[in-house]
Amino acid sequence: MGLFTQDIKTMDDLFVHTLRDMYYAENQIVKALPEMIEQATDPQLRQGFETHLTETKGHIQRLEQVFKMHGAEIKGVDCPAIDGIIDEAEEVAGEIEDKPVLDAALIAAAQAVEHYEITRYGTLIAWAKQLGRGDCASVLQKNLDEEKATDAKLTKMAEQSVNRKAA
Amino acid sequence: MGLFTQDIKTMDDLFVHTLRDMYYAENQIVKALPEMIEQATDPQLRQGFETHLTETKGHIQRLEQVFKMHGAEIKGVDCPAIDGIIDEAEEVAGEIEDKPVLDAALIAAAQAVEHYEITRYGTLIAWAKQLGRGDCASVLQKNLDEEKATDAKLTKMAEQSVNRKAA
Repeated sequence: MGLFTQDIKTMDDLFVHTLRDMYYAENQIVKALPEMIEQATDPQLRQGFETHLTETKGHIQRLEQVFKMHGAEIKGVDCPAIDGIIDEAEEVAGEIEDKPVLDAALIAAAQAVEHYEITRYGTLIAWAKQLGRGDCASVLQKNLDEEKATDAKLTKMAEQSVNRKAA
Repeated sequence: MGLFTQDIKTMDDLFVHTLRDMYYAENQIVKALPEMIEQATDPQLRQGFETHLTETKGHIQRLEQVFKMHGAEIKGVDCPAIDGIIDEAEEVAGEIEDKPVLDAALIAAAQAVEHYEITRYGTLIAWAKQLGRGDCASVLQKNLDEEKATDAKLTKMAEQSVNRKAA
């Protein structure tokens, strides 16, 4: 989609554009997670990031399935939002030497990523239903459920362990 | 905070850095909302954005109160995340001519902003409690509650009215 070319004419265009936004976002997350795994010290946090990397690869496959179901070309579009969230995570991590403080910052960064995905999948599911694509909504719901579960796990990890070690 | 200067040494530094990130973010949102109000067609949506603009100015005041309570200088730091989220909202809006479709995109953009704020306030509250600043946590909780209420209102508006008109 070009900038300011008014390429989005219908709700269907908007749905496909946002699918492509998420396809780009999930792919950027797959690229960012290995560095977060490397930076994490808490073994439970490392394991959590590793599990989420595997899940994220599954989310990409589900998005590809939705593109096919909806007859849209599988491709990404630039997503300044996820780029900004990941840039900020990398900047803040680069300013921290203390390992437990870095773990706390990494959890916060990961939760910012999760919340971006939660809002976008929520929107995509509502739009899919409105467009009569309950079948696409069901597939997207699986991604949303996993993002919400990851966010909840990160909150628990932060409150029960990581923040305590850091404070 | 300079880039990669390892200025964040303690959890307290990380807490203050993230307060400043949110202070910048809330100020950017105050700048972005008037254009979103102008672009919105649905009267309920316009009204919702107007109410949220007033609330956001209140959030800035509460953040200033937390800075003072915690003895930290009131200032913002660059927040590439909110910049990215707002840039993306403006780019997508610029591609849409149809008014009902634009309203649907504006709601989605506003919810992405809300979710960024929800995750950051959630983190700040957890860190404040860990640092023994329950007083700061209580003030931040008021902002979080309003962001969550706004997000819920936007979901209701999207599902009950805006998405239907757009589809």
